[in-house]
Amino acid sequence: MKLIKTPVKGMNDYLPRETALRDYVQSLIVREYSAAGFCRIETPAVEHIENLTGKNGGDNEKLIFRIMKRGEELSRAEQSGGELCDSGLRYDLTVPLCRYYAANSSRLPAPFMAMQIGSVWRADRPQKGRFRQFTQCDIDILGDASSQAEITLITATTGVLRKLGFDNFTVRINDRRLLKLCAAGCGFPEDRFDQAFVILDKMDKIGADGVRGELVLAGIGEQAVDSFVGIYSGCSGDLDAFAASVGGEAPDIAAGLCRICDSVGAACGGKRPVFDPTLVRGMSYYTGTIFEIAMDGYGYSVGGGGRYDRLLGKFTGQDVPACGFSLGFERIVGALADSGFRVPSSGVSAAFLAEKDIDGDTEIRMYKDAERLRAEGSRVLVTSKMKNFAFQKAKLDEEGYTEYRIYGKDSVRKI
Amino acid sequence: MKLIKTPVKGMNDYLPRETALRDYVQSLIVREYSAAGFCRIETPAVEHIENLTGKNGGDNEKLIFRIMKRGEELSRAEQSGGELCDSGLRYDLTVPLCRYYAANSSRLPAPFMAMQIGSVWRADRPQKGRFRQFTQCDIDILGDASSQAEITLITATTGVLRKLGFDNFTVRINDRRLLKLCAAGCGFPEDRFDQAFVILDKMDKIGADGVRGELVLAGIGEQAVDSFVGIYSGCSGDLDAFAASVGGEAPDIAAGLCRICDSVGAACGGKRPVFDPTLVRGMSYYTGTIFEIAMDGYGYSVGGGGRYDRLLGKFTGQDVPACGFSLGFERIVGALADSGFRVPSSGVSAAFLAEKDIDGDTEIRMYKDAERLRAEGSRVLVTSKMKNFAFQKAKLDEEGYTEYRIYGKDSVRKI
Repeated sequence: MKLIKTPVKGMNDYLPRETALRDYVQSLIVREYSAAGFCRIETPAVEHIENLTGKNGGDNEKLIFRIMKRGEELSRAEQSGGELCDSGLRYDLTVPLCRYYAANSSRLPAPFMAMQIGSVWRADRPQKGRFRQFTQCDIDILGDASSQAEITLITATTGVLRKLGFDNFTVRINDRRLLKLCAAGCGFPEDRFDQAFVILDKMDKIGADGVRGELVLAGIGEQAVDSFVGIYSGCSGDLDAFAASVGGEAPDIAAGLCRICDSVGAACGGKRPVFDPTLVRGMSYYTGTIFEIAMDGYGYSVGGGGRYDRLLGKFTGQDVPACGFSLGFERIVGALADSGFRVPSSGVSAAFLAEKDIDGDTEIRMYKDAERLRAEGSRVLVTSKMKNFAFQKAKLDEEGYTEYRIYGKDSVRKI
Repeated sequence: MKLIKTPVKGMNDYLPRETALRDYVQSLIVREYSAAGFCRIETPAVEHIENLTGKNGGDNEKLIFRIMKRGEELSRAEQSGGELCDSGLRYDLTVPLCRYYAANSSRLPAPFMAMQIGSVWRADRPQKGRFRQFTQCDIDILGDASSQAEITLITATTGVLRKLGFDNFTVRINDRRLLKLCAAGCGFPEDRFDQAFVILDKMDKIGADGVRGELVLAGIGEQAVDSFVGIYSGCSGDLDAFAASVGGEAPDIAAGLCRICDSVGAACGGKRPVFDPTLVRGMSYYTGTIFEIAMDGYGYSVGGGGRYDRLLGKFTGQDVPACGFSLGFERIVGALADSGFRVPSSGVSAAFLAEKDIDGDTEIRMYKDAERLRAEGSRVLVTSKMKNFAFQKAKLDEEGYTEYRIYGKDSVRKI
């Protein structure tokens, strides 16, 4: 029986050139985040099914790849009609991070600045740029309630983008508490907040009238909706004006946001985050600041995150302040590939090709030559010369080889 | 409900120090293998269940983590009593490599020198040093029937070990064809070869008499067993003597092995592989040369591989010469950790700690200072100063921070 050649649906094989780009981006990210004090950690790809279905993954919980029990446990479950699955592939890096911190916090620095780069899996409908296995790239600061956390996260992430040559991006920032204060002040019932924010999030697409219509359709009182939409339309994105019309604690929260923007701007050569009162971010676990990176010319964000001060408590029984930023690794790699980016190469690349009739002594000389050149920092490929040498050389040229030596029976030729 | 803190059974959370060691080893491997001309590729963690159960994984096929179908396909399978699983986690990197090559060969260099580093999963009984998720690290050369493939694989792999500071290792080498010629010459029935080789593999543990006894117990004729064991006992590991007593094509195969050993020895500063006629390697797909690395003081191999010229044909319908070497990543990392190895660090590490009452201007100065130092190549952590500063500093000292600055209200202090 012939085996199946294509990868499983929605997952990718990466060619050498694609892998080289992915590796380059990942190395640069690790270097930049390490320079900002983040420590890389690793968690298993497989997670307890109970942790994955604990209502912290939002819609992602519908997209879990479930793993079956094994051996006797599976037989027992089959006979009794019980649960056949005991675990699943992680759909994000946040749930595993919380579990990891709960299990290991006594052995970790405090505050703990974590960096994670790894695969996650979602059984989503495959489409352009959306895969069923993809790389996530998260930094999180656990145990720091101050806005140093936000500033460090945003500065480090935008630093990576700049090092990769991007400058056409904007950080948008908001605070979930402002959203809630505003909705509460307008008289929205608390159990409709999340639904209302999902509608508000579409402001840039459907406009104020669209938002108004959908909120009313959702059954929220017209008067409440009018004052809510009025505040968002009236402030024109001005933080102080918005906070003043919301009132209550809003001006204090706005002052905190403003300070984050000042410090990020100073650290990033004047590139200040922009207040966006309609920024919502999907996950309901956010409790404070939220942020997102928009890239000109791309209709989607290339990163986002926020503060989630109450998620860790679900593992530990005690809340721990936490704030994280997830960089859109696949989107960044895609944008670089689209732009024709080439991974910078360094040093000499030489190919030593052995003829079929090479003798033992020449072969030994070839390998010694190769070791010597490698010791000097060159890349040296040693391989058999193929019958169709022109084809072989054309392929090697493509891979960046520039020097060729042919080793044959008692002979060496440079070409 | 509190969530589960421990990782799933047999899989690991890695602490920052552990992850740093793993990353260091991986980077060094990638650098060395790239210098030898290998191209890194990536395949999905999830593989078609048909490919995983195609009898190319040996005993590993019993250890598959199976993934359930989803949505309507799952419902249909449940109602009809059909197969609930459509895929599984890969248990090695060889099956995915063969699928990858079959799918992409026209877009790959020829010969194709592949490097893969990635996780694999086996639902094995967890024990010391054996995990259910672990990293494999393979190089393979596809499309080269000459012994350049073997020499390049062995030279590159031992080069990695030397760069990591190991010199207490030996490469043992054999050829599956010698095993088969010997068994056939002694009159073993061909369908008992694999079983006989598993027994022969225990020579170093149970001795010649033990091997003789088990072969007879397995039902192979005494006369055949006596001549078989006689050849292995009589040659004392001498390649020419062994080949002479086996006869037939054995001396030609021996000459090939000898040439591989000569070239590897020359490229590796005289460190010649050692012929071991009882080396077997478990996988039945090997067709020629096989090799393994033994490390003094460790009762297990830290790497192994061989030639498998007929495996790719199962995907493509046409045989392609292939040879691979798998480096025991987890064992190497374990050996380094046991030896107290510390990842070499470079440059200055400074921690900037912000007091609670830091003012906006000092905060801006702090972030600008940090950016400046990072631009000079330093690692600079910016974080909140904790109440228990002595504890915080002790932890940071452990992480390698050597310079400290405290930023407070209109003040900066170095300590």
